[in-house]
Amino acid sequence: MANKKYVYLFKEGKADMRDLLGGKGANLAEMTNIGLPVPPGLTITTEACNEYYAQGKKWPEGLEEELKEKLASLEEMAGKKFGDAKNPLLVSVRSGAKFSMPGMMDTILNLGLNEQTCQGMIEATQNERFVLDCYRRFIQMYSNVVLGVDHYKFENVLEAQKEKKGVQYDTELDAEDLRAIVAEYKNVVLRETGKPFPEDPMEQLFGAVTAVFGSWNNQRAIVYRKLNGIPDDLGTAVNVQLMVFGNMGNDCGTGVAFTRNPSTGEKKLYGEYLINAQGEDVVAGIRTPQPISKLEEEMPEIYQQFLDICKLLENHYKNMQDIEFTIERGKLYILQTRHGKRTAPAAIKIAVDMVEEGLIDKKEAILRVEPGQLDQLLHRRIDPNAKFEVIAKGLPASPGAACGQVVFDADEAEKLGQQGVKVVLVRTETTPDDIHGIVEAQGVLTSRGGMTSHAAVVARGMGKPCVCGCEAIKINYEGKYFTVDGVTVKEGDVISIDGATGQVILGEVPMIDPEISGEFQKLLSWADELRTMSVRANADTPEDAARAREFGAEGIGLCRTEHMFMAQDRLPVVQQMILAETLEERNAALEKLLPMQQGDFYGILKAMAGFPVYIRLLDPPLHEFLPNQEELAVEIAELKCTNGDPKVIAEKEELLKKVRQLHEFNPMLGHRGCRLGVTFPEIYAMQVRAIYQATAQLVKEGVDAKPEVMIPLVIHANELRMLREQAVEIAKQVQEETGVTFDIHVGTMIEMPRAAVTADEIAEFADFFSFGTNDLTQTTLGFSRDDAEGKFLQDYLAKKILTDNPFIVLDQGGVGKLVKMGTELGRQANPKLKVGICGEHGGEPSSIAFCHRVGMDYVSCSPFRVPIARLAAAQAAVGGESAVSTK
Amino acid sequence: MANKKYVYLFKEGKADMRDLLGGKGANLAEMTNIGLPVPPGLTITTEACNEYYAQGKKWPEGLEEELKEKLASLEEMAGKKFGDAKNPLLVSVRSGAKFSMPGMMDTILNLGLNEQTCQGMIEATQNERFVLDCYRRFIQMYSNVVLGVDHYKFENVLEAQKEKKGVQYDTELDAEDLRAIVAEYKNVVLRETGKPFPEDPMEQLFGAVTAVFGSWNNQRAIVYRKLNGIPDDLGTAVNVQLMVFGNMGNDCGTGVAFTRNPSTGEKKLYGEYLINAQGEDVVAGIRTPQPISKLEEEMPEIYQQFLDICKLLENHYKNMQDIEFTIERGKLYILQTRHGKRTAPAAIKIAVDMVEEGLIDKKEAILRVEPGQLDQLLHRRIDPNAKFEVIAKGLPASPGAACGQVVFDADEAEKLGQQGVKVVLVRTETTPDDIHGIVEAQGVLTSRGGMTSHAAVVARGMGKPCVCGCEAIKINYEGKYFTVDGVTVKEGDVISIDGATGQVILGEVPMIDPEISGEFQKLLSWADELRTMSVRANADTPEDAARAREFGAEGIGLCRTEHMFMAQDRLPVVQQMILAETLEERNAALEKLLPMQQGDFYGILKAMAGFPVYIRLLDPPLHEFLPNQEELAVEIAELKCTNGDPKVIAEKEELLKKVRQLHEFNPMLGHRGCRLGVTFPEIYAMQVRAIYQATAQLVKEGVDAKPEVMIPLVIHANELRMLREQAVEIAKQVQEETGVTFDIHVGTMIEMPRAAVTADEIAEFADFFSFGTNDLTQTTLGFSRDDAEGKFLQDYLAKKILTDNPFIVLDQGGVGKLVKMGTELGRQANPKLKVGICGEHGGEPSSIAFCHRVGMDYVSCSPFRVPIARLAAAQAAVGGESAVSTK
Repeated sequence: MANKKYVYLFKEGKADMRDLLGGKGANLAEMTNIGLPVPPGLTITTEACNEYYAQGKKWPEGLEEELKEKLASLEEMAGKKFGDAKNPLLVSVRSGAKFSMPGMMDTILNLGLNEQTCQGMIEATQNERFVLDCYRRFIQMYSNVVLGVDHYKFENVLEAQKEKKGVQYDTELDAEDLRAIVAEYKNVVLRETGKPFPEDPMEQLFGAVTAVFGSWNNQRAIVYRKLNGIPDDLGTAVNVQLMVFGNMGNDCGTGVAFTRNPSTGEKKLYGEYLINAQGEDVVAGIRTPQPISKLEEEMPEIYQQFLDICKLLENHYKNMQDIEFTIERGKLYILQTRHGKRTAPAAIKIAVDMVEEGLIDKKEAILRVEPGQLDQLLHRRIDPNAKFEVIAKGLPASPGAACGQVVFDADEAEKLGQQGVKVVLVRTETTPDDIHGIVEAQGVLTSRGGMTSHAAVVARGMGKPCVCGCEAIKINYEGKYFTVDGVTVKEGDVISIDGATGQVILGEVPMIDPEISGEFQKLLSWADELRTMSVRANADTPEDAARAREFGAEGIGLCRTEHMFMAQDRLPVVQQMILAETLEERNAALEKLLPMQQGDFYGILKAMAGFPVYIRLLDPPLHEFLPNQEELAVEIAELKCTNGDPKVIAEKEELLKKVRQLHEFNPMLGHRGCRLGVTFPEIYAMQVRAIYQATAQLVKEGVDAKPEVMIPLVIHANELRMLREQAVEIAKQVQEETGVTFDIHVGTMIEMPRAAVTADEIAEFADFFSFGTNDLTQTTLGFSRDDAEGKFLQDYLAKKILTDNPFIVLDQGGVGKLVKMGTELGRQANPKLKVGICGEHGGEPSSIAFCHRVGMDYVSCSPFRVPIARLAAAQAAVGGESAVSTK
Repeated sequence: MANKKYVYLFKEGKADMRDLLGGKGANLAEMTNIGLPVPPGLTITTEACNEYYAQGKKWPEGLEEELKEKLASLEEMAGKKFGDAKNPLLVSVRSGAKFSMPGMMDTILNLGLNEQTCQGMIEATQNERFVLDCYRRFIQMYSNVVLGVDHYKFENVLEAQKEKKGVQYDTELDAEDLRAIVAEYKNVVLRETGKPFPEDPMEQLFGAVTAVFGSWNNQRAIVYRKLNGIPDDLGTAVNVQLMVFGNMGNDCGTGVAFTRNPSTGEKKLYGEYLINAQGEDVVAGIRTPQPISKLEEEMPEIYQQFLDICKLLENHYKNMQDIEFTIERGKLYILQTRHGKRTAPAAIKIAVDMVEEGLIDKKEAILRVEPGQLDQLLHRRIDPNAKFEVIAKGLPASPGAACGQVVFDADEAEKLGQQGVKVVLVRTETTPDDIHGIVEAQGVLTSRGGMTSHAAVVARGMGKPCVCGCEAIKINYEGKYFTVDGVTVKEGDVISIDGATGQVILGEVPMIDPEISGEFQKLLSWADELRTMSVRANADTPEDAARAREFGAEGIGLCRTEHMFMAQDRLPVVQQMILAETLEERNAALEKLLPMQQGDFYGILKAMAGFPVYIRLLDPPLHEFLPNQEELAVEIAELKCTNGDPKVIAEKEELLKKVRQLHEFNPMLGHRGCRLGVTFPEIYAMQVRAIYQATAQLVKEGVDAKPEVMIPLVIHANELRMLREQAVEIAKQVQEETGVTFDIHVGTMIEMPRAAVTADEIAEFADFFSFGTNDLTQTTLGFSRDDAEGKFLQDYLAKKILTDNPFIVLDQGGVGKLVKMGTELGRQANPKLKVGICGEHGGEPSSIAFCHRVGMDYVSCSPFRVPIARLAAAQAAVGGESAVSTK
């Protein structure tokens, strides 16, 4: 034990010694060693901390001696002595674990001050007020952190002094006031702890080190480690560093700078500084800092030196740096450097520029941009510089921002929209009857419903902003207004909504249009070179398909057919089909639908010419196309009460009967998906015929149409066998009828747990698997998304039972196991099987990385997330696990 | 090839040659070899059939010669010659694959008859009519089966002759008529096939053998094999056997007998016979057969010989036999023996008797009784001899039969029931408000809802008969009647329902009470010796617990607590708890519930003293305890229309608001189970406190109470960790408060796919796993039971996508995989983990066998199925896979 080295001078350490020196200590050592003017210091190792606990909270043998020895070296380097009355050494003490951890002791500044050294400092600086202020702050911080005296006890003293003097700000207190405060502070310590404040600098230091050790096991730190899976036995290091002062005169200063513009990415130093000031003065905002370029005029040599250091640091870390510096009596010190935070456009520009400067390669550039950040660039959004007031917040159901007059009725929305008036449709919830209004609206706001409510799904499909489930909003349809928190918003009033944040704003807010800059294009083209999975879009219309192509989609992974059924002009025919009592009646309705569907598929296949289009046959339960049961029942009751037309009542009652028959307790687990194809084979037959007739038509026109038929909600190989046989037979009929040949591919969604665990059996009849992770999440967890989000899921996240919303971030530990199993079993049985994902997770970076690891062929997501998926897929291919969150 | 043996005489074969000789051939060989008087014959092997197909439907080389050669041996044994004009040999030809298969060719009788042999037979028998009738039948059967002439063409000839003669029955036709018919039959054959009917007996035989080969690949046989997983390459054998005739005079006869009474199991020959008759005469019912005992008087020697043979066969097969015999001119022939079908009581008595006779051992006895059959013995049931008319059929929701006056209202049911009047409660569906009526009713009939509807669950829990989802019944509450198919049943009319079949019957039907006979008890005690899994019951009340003990349950595997909440006197308090706006209000309601729940647990734990009781904390979504949303909305609309009291309207609207807030789109996947415990920890806390306070009370009284706390619907280890901690803490508090110590066990349901795939993580915090296979089936298949049963599930069974209702027979290929995975992962992480099942599958024999194979510790089922489970568990332990269905 005794020969273990517990204390390292900065110059003895290295960047790769994070385990021993902690993150901060290793970084200070690295900077020292590359020759930066870092104030000298030392680091007490994490091992010392662990020993401290191993021995029942006692300093390990030898630590005290070693610390004193290294302190002597420090004194020598600084030319100052600890506790020296003339030229005292002052230090800061900071904790520094391997990972940055909130809850641990932060910083004690100016340690080493006492009555005597204070006097020495005053003589040396000729600045009594400054030194006394340092002393006051030191006593307060030390007493709080090390001696455990409540903060407010000192604040009371300070406030009392200001009151006595009749001033408002600390800065208005003079040296004399501060001296009185220091004396009173010491009284507080004596009263609270029963002991005088320690005068001996060495005692102060030992106390501070012990306090840092202790902070490793305070409650907040323990909880943080538990939640983040950080082992309890890492321990923390302690950094002791020479104090430097930017506020000792006009040859002093302090500042912060980024090596490139963190907002635009421009390669130009960006930052600000203050002469004769401390770091906290910049924050306090009493004096206005100067832009960093001014430093060139005020201190040209320092400025040049700082420029050189910035370049050195960028070259060393190969990344844009965020640097804190202090100038003490004409000498520049670097206190900290770290990778600078940046906006999405800056991240893109910096990554691309650095490749072109030869600093990093393309792979590294790909890893430098957080894919999730890109979302804001791909939608119209609220100007980040705009100021506005949020009146309510709902669920962020479909990203993008919209602004327009409030309208409560779909017909009105359609009318005004077609007149060119910008409107936002506001409803408690939407139904298929509202589609024509949504089409013409800028965005949708609902007071009920979750992320998979009708409004949300339709809006996302159309790429329209939507905020839903905004329960604070109380709509009064008759009065044509809504109220929220005392505010009344009438029809025609202008609101803005932000579908990325769920914000609802009164009035118009400045917006920024999306743009894919040249650098962005370049970065994505590199991503395309590097990724191994292909990226497709979920799209239901030719317009969506075209947009998806613009964003770089290589096909459609999910083309839903039900939205085609919900179009205003088709709904009556669809209802006729559903309400049919006989096969003949149903077939008559289906015959009317056939040419409509054929037209739909013609358009989409043409827009995606040359790329595969996976068309999912009808999926939702039939009653979704019918009126709401409760509303109908109430309507009948009212009609009866008011002696309504008996014929109308009878008709409505007949309809209600049918709606009741189709009613399901759990529609999510009900008669939908391929279960419809099993009981009503004629519906799927019509759809398949429409697909292949459209294909034949296109092939004749010389268009390379590539449809594949996707069967939803399969749970048993027998379902797929039966429906595949029917589809292939119809395809061959169409080939015979038209004389055109085309490839026939039939695959399935894997979205029920049974499909995943019997994937080997199912794969015998499948050309592809498309994991529908939305439904797979609902069934695997037994979470109805509509019921969970905004309700009990909030408790699950708040109580940390789940770390993420599983409908946004794929639950790799549960759902992911089934996805993996399904992929492996499927490939075993059918090595040619194509495997992909088309749930919303297909556009979420950590989920995309998972899909890559599982070995999928493609991911498919909404058109607007295609660029995100391209980047995330490349990151997964390049960096594997390390590049992305491993949740 | 040429030296392969294709034809075996019966005496050359053995019982274990089923692969080669088929089931029938091997059995005939076996009987021949143990010395029974079986008419001699030969078997053409399955290999010959396979060769036939291998060579493009040609007879294999050598088969013809071998067949002729063996036929010569047959002629020798019979002392008759094939085609001989004086003493012709007649044979039957039958198919006979390894497994009995419907759809294959059955039998051709009297092959060998032609004009010449017919004449010889007439001379030999002196019975022209008999011989000509045989000939007519032979031509008809052969022409249909071998030559492919439609049956009806011959029926037309027969009918024409009867009309001509002016008679009604075939038997009224005389020899002359039959001769004319034979001639006309031959004309039909010539006209239809272009060839005369074959006269050459050898040609007839070759044609018949080829037809049997062909029948192996007819459509019905292929489909049957596919559905039953029988390989296509087994092939069929062909049996050619000497004809014997029971109708050649008064020294002839035919009959069928069981070696023991198949209805009661009594050890006494049971059967009937007819003198001078063929087998089909017995079936035709024109003459009344004699009981077998009469034969002793009529043919004492034959009777004695038959008795000896019966004994021999029972001893040989060690099982009750069902024997067909024919007496031809004073000589007894045995045509067939097989294990006799029997009723449940007979199966039990025979198995127990045979053990006591030393014929079989206990293990064998256990395997002799089909557990599913026992169900009828365990409930009051309709007398199987009763005749009655079924007016409607619903879902068999809770077994047992009930009879009583129709009542449409729970209050009325309670009132009459308490007066001693027997009533059946008839409702569209029931709600918690009806419980008091169900308690007093004999049974429940509903027109809506599935096997898990409120009525079904509550009735099963109480062991009361229930038929639900009987949609044919149209209830008119105001008129106090229901109609079904034109019949009107008024309040007060008597109906009977059979909850085991779903039948609804007008009027009273005689019933039989359940009984566990002495033999039944004995058999079950042997089952208990042999089984390795323990058997528990699902029970919610002290009464159920006591009944479960009577039926041999060794604990409670599932004690639901929600039914306690639904009791009439508690519902208002429960609603108060649910509608509480603040924690204080909720706690006030919970405080009222605490002593009630404590009383519940006290009773159950006491009734199950010495055995474990797994108590599941509150599981259903809270809105189940509130009024129906639609009804409430309609009520408000009506009140408004009719200018109802504004205060009442406001109150109802407030309630509706709350009901709407709690409304869920998919309650099955909603806010229920431990999700309630997560959001409202105080509810679970109350329940746990009630459990342990009851325990402490009992321990003080010297009762061995063994509660274990079961957390439902867990999907993540974190949920269980949190709720376990709370439960353990409360248990310790109770121990401190009362000074009593008791064991603390906390486990979980595994009923969501995520729980199964993360069972290793969950097992760290679980003392036991209880697989809730009802919900696990719903989520794994994505089938809402309420929506699937009686709706699309019917299509799935009809179209053979699924072979069984997965809510009755565990879906081993899908859900079973998750159960197996969950068990294995759980045991890996926690070797002490107890594992069992408490879904309804816990009482289904093939599912119980699966649980045994997976290695579970126990199964739990409804009290009435406990004896079934005891037997099935023993069968699984004894016979492993072979004993039971391996679906």
